[in-house]
Amino acid sequence: MPRSVTGPEIERLIQLLAKLPGLGPRSARRAALHLIKKKDQLLVPLAEAMDVAVSSIMVCETCGNIDTTNPCTICADPRRDASTIVVVEDVADLWALERAGAINARYHVLGGALSPLDGIGPEELNINRLVGRVASGGVGEVILAVNATVEGQTTAHYIMDQLAGLGVKVSRLAHGVPVGGELDYLDEGTLSAAIRQRTKF
Amino acid sequence: MPRSVTGPEIERLIQLLAKLPGLGPRSARRAALHLIKKKDQLLVPLAEAMDVAVSSIMVCETCGNIDTTNPCTICADPRRDASTIVVVEDVADLWALERAGAINARYHVLGGALSPLDGIGPEELNINRLVGRVASGGVGEVILAVNATVEGQTTAHYIMDQLAGLGVKVSRLAHGVPVGGELDYLDEGTLSAAIRQRTKF
Repeated sequence: MPRSVTGPEIERLIQLLAKLPGLGPRSARRAALHLIKKKDQLLVPLAEAMDVAVSSIMVCETCGNIDTTNPCTICADPRRDASTIVVVEDVADLWALERAGAINARYHVLGGALSPLDGIGPEELNINRLVGRVASGGVGEVILAVNATVEGQTTAHYIMDQLAGLGVKVSRLAHGVPVGGELDYLDEGTLSAAIRQRTKF
Repeated sequence: MPRSVTGPEIERLIQLLAKLPGLGPRSARRAALHLIKKKDQLLVPLAEAMDVAVSSIMVCETCGNIDTTNPCTICADPRRDASTIVVVEDVADLWALERAGAINARYHVLGGALSPLDGIGPEELNINRLVGRVASGGVGEVILAVNATVEGQTTAHYIMDQLAGLGVKVSRLAHGVPVGGELDYLDEGTLSAAIRQRTKF
């Protein structure tokens, strides 16, 4: 146990910062010191922004997105194509698709993927509400934008079974060469998929 | 300009988190999402820890250390050897030496190193107060634990000049092979210094 260099207040700040993804114990100390040095420019505004976040953030009851309104900005936007629902595992995936401007549709956030080993079954995920949204009508297509992992694909198959008979088109993301990617560095599965799903030039 | 995915409250949180060292725009989004998901376990405590830090952190008027008391914990500790002052550029360096348990002495934080190109002269650094501490007596040795960079060494020479005639021993850190280091990966300057400053086995 190394000696405590600073007061307990700073130690606690460091410990909490170290729990953020991307920051370890060492970088958390650096971050804490940076915050303290830039007290007025960074520490005070960040503390305020966190207080605001604590009091204003909520989960959209329609799609599971995180926002400061319920229904969320996307669900409430009339310019969005409500007949298409993009199903994602996590809010981070929704943000990624939105940053890409990939599609102007609605979303549905599952909150994870099926993983029996981790004890995550269908009840742990936001699947029933998705089936309910589709069953209530007005949805023409469900795009399963889950990860290309075993868990993601298992989840996709499970959802496809649940949506069967509801008369909705179910699609999934294309596999292939990432834009800017070099063939030499890609795995065999991706290359085989890229050949199989080749498109007319 | 990509579409804003979330409300302005979350965007602001992401922007501020991205200003932390070690976090970029992408990892700041991930950190924000992590904070929001772990609202009660992480976001609320971190917001509180920051509020506490804002109101309690101060700079030690004796040595320039950052702490929640003034004089700081180290300057106020009677078990510390007050006759030895370790001069560091930054509070992070003080923390590093304390974590190592390298020495049980007092410190003096300069707040940087001399760098004419960046407009950092002696007045920008906490040097006058160091000279004052030494001149007021009771100090037997000043250890210049500055970085082994051009700026650090320039600063060391400047401080040595300022302390000349005050009857204090001035020393600096040893150069050599880092513990655990492999010779093959070390630069010529370090290797030459390690040979020159070799010690009896």
